[in-house]
Amino acid sequence: MPDPRFYHRAGPISAAQAAGIVGAVLPAGLDAAASIADVATFADATPRDAVFLSDKTHLPALAQSKAGFCFVAADLAASVPGHCAALTCKDPRAAFAMLAAHLYPDIAPTWGTSAVAPDAEIGVGALIAPNAVIGAKAKIGAGCKIGPHAVIGPGVVLGDTCIIGANVTITFSIIGARVIVHPGVQIGQDGFGYVATPAGPRKVPQLGRVMIHDDVEIGANCTIDRGSLADTIIGRATKLDNLVQIGHNVVIGQACILVAQSGVAGSCTIGDGVIIGGQVGIADHVTIGAGAQIASQSGLMRDVAPGEKVMGYPAKPVRQFFREVAALEKLAGGKTPKKTEG
Amino acid sequence: MPDPRFYHRAGPISAAQAAGIVGAVLPAGLDAAASIADVATFADATPRDAVFLSDKTHLPALAQSKAGFCFVAADLAASVPGHCAALTCKDPRAAFAMLAAHLYPDIAPTWGTSAVAPDAEIGVGALIAPNAVIGAKAKIGAGCKIGPHAVIGPGVVLGDTCIIGANVTITFSIIGARVIVHPGVQIGQDGFGYVATPAGPRKVPQLGRVMIHDDVEIGANCTIDRGSLADTIIGRATKLDNLVQIGHNVVIGQACILVAQSGVAGSCTIGDGVIIGGQVGIADHVTIGAGAQIASQSGLMRDVAPGEKVMGYPAKPVRQFFREVAALEKLAGGKTPKKTEG
Amino acid sequence: MPDPRFYHRAGPISAAQAAGIVGAVLPAGLDAAASIADVATFADATPRDAVFLSDKTHLPALAQSKAGFCFVAADLAASVPGHCAALTCKDPRAAFAMLAAHLYPDIAPTWGTSAVAPDAEIGVGALIAPNAVIGAKAKIGAGCKIGPHAVIGPGVVLGDTCIIGANVTITFSIIGARVIVHPGVQIGQDGFGYVATPAGPRKVPQLGRVMIHDDVEIGANCTIDRGSLADTIIGRATKLDNLVQIGHNVVIGQACILVAQSGVAGSCTIGDGVIIGGQVGIADHVTIGAGAQIASQSGLMRDVAPGEKVMGYPAKPVRQFFREVAALEKLAGGKTPKKTEG
Repeated sequence: MPDPRFYHRAGPISAAQAAGIVGAVLPAGLDAAASIADVATFADATPRDAVFLSDKTHLPALAQSKAGFCFVAADLAASVPGHCAALTCKDPRAAFAMLAAHLYPDIAPTWGTSAVAPDAEIGVGALIAPNAVIGAKAKIGAGCKIGPHAVIGPGVVLGDTCIIGANVTITFSIIGARVIVHPGVQIGQDGFGYVATPAGPRKVPQLGRVMIHDDVEIGANCTIDRGSLADTIIGRATKLDNLVQIGHNVVIGQACILVAQSGVAGSCTIGDGVIIGGQVGIADHVTIGAGAQIASQSGLMRDVAPGEKVMGYPAKPVRQFFREVAALEKLAGGKTPKKTEG
Repeated sequence: MPDPRFYHRAGPISAAQAAGIVGAVLPAGLDAAASIADVATFADATPRDAVFLSDKTHLPALAQSKAGFCFVAADLAASVPGHCAALTCKDPRAAFAMLAAHLYPDIAPTWGTSAVAPDAEIGVGALIAPNAVIGAKAKIGAGCKIGPHAVIGPGVVLGDTCIIGANVTITFSIIGARVIVHPGVQIGQDGFGYVATPAGPRKVPQLGRVMIHDDVEIGANCTIDRGSLADTIIGRATKLDNLVQIGHNVVIGQACILVAQSGVAGSCTIGDGVIIGGQVGIADHVTIGAGAQIASQSGLMRDVAPGEKVMGYPAKPVRQFFREVAALEKLAGGKTPKKTEG
Repeated sequence: MPDPRFYHRAGPISAAQAAGIVGAVLPAGLDAAASIADVATFADATPRDAVFLSDKTHLPALAQSKAGFCFVAADLAASVPGHCAALTCKDPRAAFAMLAAHLYPDIAPTWGTSAVAPDAEIGVGALIAPNAVIGAKAKIGAGCKIGPHAVIGPGVVLGDTCIIGANVTITFSIIGARVIVHPGVQIGQDGFGYVATPAGPRKVPQLGRVMIHDDVEIGANCTIDRGSLADTIIGRATKLDNLVQIGHNVVIGQACILVAQSGVAGSCTIGDGVIIGGQVGIADHVTIGAGAQIASQSGLMRDVAPGEKVMGYPAKPVRQFFREVAALEKLAGGKTPKKTEG
């Protein structure tokens, strides 16, 4: 469920109201006045919360979930477990997004009138540079250094002795200790998520957080989107070079290295100790095993096994890549002598 | 002609003065005291304005133009229509740039002494966060939310209920309603344009604007350069992911999607509903038809037909790309078993 | 040696103390109380300073150096010249980094309580926009324009008539005259350098500067890391487009052009007049000769001769690249007609 430190719910809604708003049909026998408290992931849902089933691959997760309500397409409605009310609709993800937008009508951070909110907690020895802005109820750990024009959003938590550079924005985030964030980094803004609706593409409310563990370092002008409902997570001692993009719901393990200008699309899972070269692009929902290495500029569209080394566009085992480079060079008639160029 | 809300012209200049400054020759019979009021595009020029002809492909546009003066190379001077004075010179683009620099000697935005300029118009219910800076005569629509350290330049117009993130800079721009700009975005700075002159490369004054239509969303740390003379335009409901680069004079249609870290070089035209994948690079002056799809990491150097799907470096039809991938794999001796790698 | 305008040394240390901290062995006959004043490059070191030898390729540089102390692996200790004490250790780079961290325990810029430090020098006619922050002892040249929320760090020097955009951060840098820095640029933050230690990866203290010569222009949201010990240098009249990444210790010559989203990894050397296309990636320690051209999206992993034109991934001579493109197209059975796609 969305973290109440960041998201203010408009209040529960009856199943009948929800069905009306999103265009769903209640199951026979459900009390139309039954109250839906919140939107949630399968793992977090309580019997008062709603989830959605996008396709049958998530049926096992739904079976494990305690959710009391599930948006589902007609052909899968019969597969919804008995403890969960099937709210039948055409596009479950869109219905869920519309309910989320109704429950959380106003997500953008709000700012008071003073640069440092009176109810922000500033730890012992923390240094706040001129013109930094600290939002309501934010917690700044002991010994942190907050640079000029840094913006720490409402409710954000920073562990001890973090260094936050100038012109950084951090919202909707929980940050560990000794984290270094270089200037110009943007953390916690909306992920890039839309659903098709009869009225055209519609924004999916982004209700998750960014969790950054201890000893992480984030290079200048990186962007890290918050999760859509689950969290975007960066594991302990992972290092991001400059201008790296991390999409929503990405989970990165410990002690990884991501070189400059690499990009990780939404919902990827990256194991511990992975090395990702400069300008690498990773498609959404890819899983990379621990210790894998992705060479610079690779375009990765498939899962990578632990310890595997890949390269190319599309990325393939490094040896195969270089074998193909050599084969193509031979096919085309060998190398061009340098002196004929220019 | 440059929008007087943003650009302050030094005043008209005589044709003889202009010719002296840029090293052009006046046509026989032209009154040397004739006044040149401004620089302009072919489409916008009046009989008092000057344009330039870079090569003969623009002759039809010149024939349609009402321009009274045209910088032109000697070999094309005879092709200039009778209602337009041909100002002959070696490098018409450089001459035009030098005249523009003379007419607009000081382009950088100027800032007063108060963070919110007294003559800025702030709409009903608009929220201005601490430390935001609003320039002279800027107009902020009703219900807008302006984040901390956002900078709204002099003369900039924002429609109603826009959300502008922290650490955003917007200059030389006209923005529609319900536009969302995430933190760290830079909109309206100079495009990347230079001309060769006897004194070395010289900056071409950038005198256009950025026009962003309703319901656009711009991801964190994107950069959108203003037009050189015509405008950079982003159509209604188009969505940009993070770290996207849009060059000067680019025109993007409605409801397009540009995924993270893609880049569109100057003067490209992109139709409605185009999808551009992550880390795609598009060369300058390329035209992409409506509904086309450019796969992630593609390098696009040619026009794309409406509905066409391309991929690769250089980009080609998707099926052809994968046929080539398969052919090369076969040539090099098949796939490397994963277990031999690592 | 680190510039005292930016870095405050904790004081000299005895050879015995240093050896204890980093786990090195002093050579027989060295006075254990001998004082090590500082860390330095081979070129800058005095007899009171320490350097390190990572491998034998740097033996000639060490032979030329006046350094009095050198961290070195056991197998190369005998190659250290007589005027230099060989401090034997397992990982000389890590030992050097540990000593540097000891001598410079606190590198992050510090900020006073006023937005413009009382001891900053503001040149005649310089305009400081609202909310700009100028650090202690910074020098702003005559006629500079500093944008809103720009941050000029302690000790930074700007030449005359520079234009610094909004939301820019400049630290640890010496900037020439007439330099234009567009909004959102981050200059002078830590480079991306780590060493492996028994306690896991450890940050290498970054103790160099960024030197930007006259008439350089830097596009929006670029990132330029400062040197690790030597400087990152950008030569006169070089132009960077938006979102370009420059790693630590990179040296770029005069009048180069780097198009948007290109990235140059650490310690590259780029000659005068080089043109680097959009989204190019250049691996670390590559040397590019004067006048060379690197086509857009190339991945460059080797040196490039002066005037050479390369393209591709990995980059090769342009003609060879296109010959290979044609050969692969032929192998795969020719072009796919457009009408079968979409």
